Amino acid sequence: MAEINTKTLNTGDDAEYELIYWPGIPGRAEFVRLLFEEAGVPYKDHARTPDQAVAKVLALMDLKNIGDDSNPPILAPPALKHGNVILSQTPNILIYLAPKLGLSPPATETAFYHLNQAALTILDGFSNEVHETHHPIAVSMYYEDQKEEAKKRSKAFSEERAPKFLAYVQRLLDSKTSGGGPWLHGDRVTYVDLVLFQCIDGTSYAFPKTMAQLKSSGKYDGVFKLYEAVKERPNIKSYLASDRRAKYADGIYRHYPELEDTIEVEVTLSK
Amino acid sequence: MAEINTKTLNTGDDAEYELIYWPGIPGRAEFVRLLFEEAGVPYKDHARTPDQAVAKVLALMDLKNIGDDSNPPILAPPALKHGNVILSQTPNILIYLAPKLGLSPPATETAFYHLNQAALTILDGFSNEVHETHHPIAVSMYYEDQKEEAKKRSKAFSEERAPKFLAYVQRLLDSKTSGGGPWLHGDRVTYVDLVLFQCIDGTSYAFPKTMAQLKSSGKYDGVFKLYEAVKERPNIKSYLASDRRAKYADGIYRHYPELEDTIEVEVTLSK
Repeated sequence: MAEINTKTLNTGDDAEYELIYWPGIPGRAEFVRLLFEEAGVPYKDHARTPDQAVAKVLALMDLKNIGDDSNPPILAPPALKHGNVILSQTPNILIYLAPKLGLSPPATETAFYHLNQAALTILDGFSNEVHETHHPIAVSMYYEDQKEEAKKRSKAFSEERAPKFLAYVQRLLDSKTSGGGPWLHGDRVTYVDLVLFQCIDGTSYAFPKTMAQLKSSGKYDGVFKLYEAVKERPNIKSYLASDRRAKYADGIYRHYPELEDTIEVEVTLSK
Repeated sequence: MAEINTKTLNTGDDAEYELIYWPGIPGRAEFVRLLFEEAGVPYKDHARTPDQAVAKVLALMDLKNIGDDSNPPILAPPALKHGNVILSQTPNILIYLAPKLGLSPPATETAFYHLNQAALTILDGFSNEVHETHHPIAVSMYYEDQKEEAKKRSKAFSEERAPKFLAYVQRLLDSKTSGGGPWLHGDRVTYVDLVLFQCIDGTSYAFPKTMAQLKSSGKYDGVFKLYEAVKERPNIKSYLASDRRAKYADGIYRHYPELEDTIEVEVTLSK
């Protein structure tokens, strides 16, 4: 897999990678962490120094922050700092990093765009839409104050959206651009396999009944096989067992059992 | 602005561009159309032959469609066909097209990622979140059956989200990476200016009271000046006056007056 020509980037490839995010949750930063961990590339994870991490995030998000000479301001974390480059937006950080870490072909190849397409779709279904299940009205309101709406949105997620997106990922695995092995694109692991792993892992934490029923349907075996294959990658396995892996808490993936009270996933599956 | 080296792409730059989308609404395809129109590059817009467009979209989305030899399947339109390349996901189509059309630097430059970061954020705030205002519970349900929830979500959009995202775009315009002129990045128009134009135009259609109040606050003058500057670009101006520009209808941007009944944007603005 060819490396992108970085000569015109305003950074040396030997510059340190820094990840800036809230401490105490995997959150959206987890998608970025998994790339570093799989590649075995060191990175400074500011969330691991929680007494300074919050101030660091708040400074980046400050309404008076208009960036610096070469970087526009960011709206929200995660942010990646690499040399004098600062980037935000998870899928954007991923396409910047993945070719450098050997986890994507460069932007001169069509596969770069097919991988970005898959990453955006998987993040839509299993990250953005999962967040909406517990905050369907307003991110500024407590969950308890939008619980009834959350139940309705979650029912639609479990019965319609999760099966729809799982079926799409299974189609990606059934396509000719996926190789004979477990991976989404070609014969080797890419960053999108890592994105899918984290999405399935987090969604299974938030909606265990839903995901167990969908898994047992046998319709998405390739997806769950891929999930297990990522989990067994040596670097990922040791990362998951380490204290660097944060536990799920009040982030994107939250486990509120009442949100699965009335689901009937089999209704969808029998269609 | 250097052109991306397309020699390793599986397509000739002289191949025809085809846009596949639902007929009758601007929708997400509009972001792509505006690039072609600004650049003056011909494209075959399948939505313009409505008797065939729906079948074309449905074939792409078919659950049995697993793509072809070099393209994975797509989940939803818009899709771009260029030579033998098929791509989906709006922000992904934009980063593929923009460097070819002279509306973005290539992926070897940091600005490519800063523009993608801005596009993703603007689309989050003024396209994805606007869609959620009228469908906060389920895309499969009628608006009428989720109207009460839509009112609550819209109130949060008008009072919190729209000001938040407008303030961010204004910060982008105040940053050093924005040039002295009206544009978001440097001294010339990029695709992100076109994305912002469409987002402001559509959101102003859907939430006219909200956007009028926000405009009259004077806090986001740069944003609304940029909107006007795009509108006056010669190619854009003649496009908007042509019958190629679809009218807003039941797409992302819908005008339901009741969704603005109880808004108090000034509450936010006085903070």
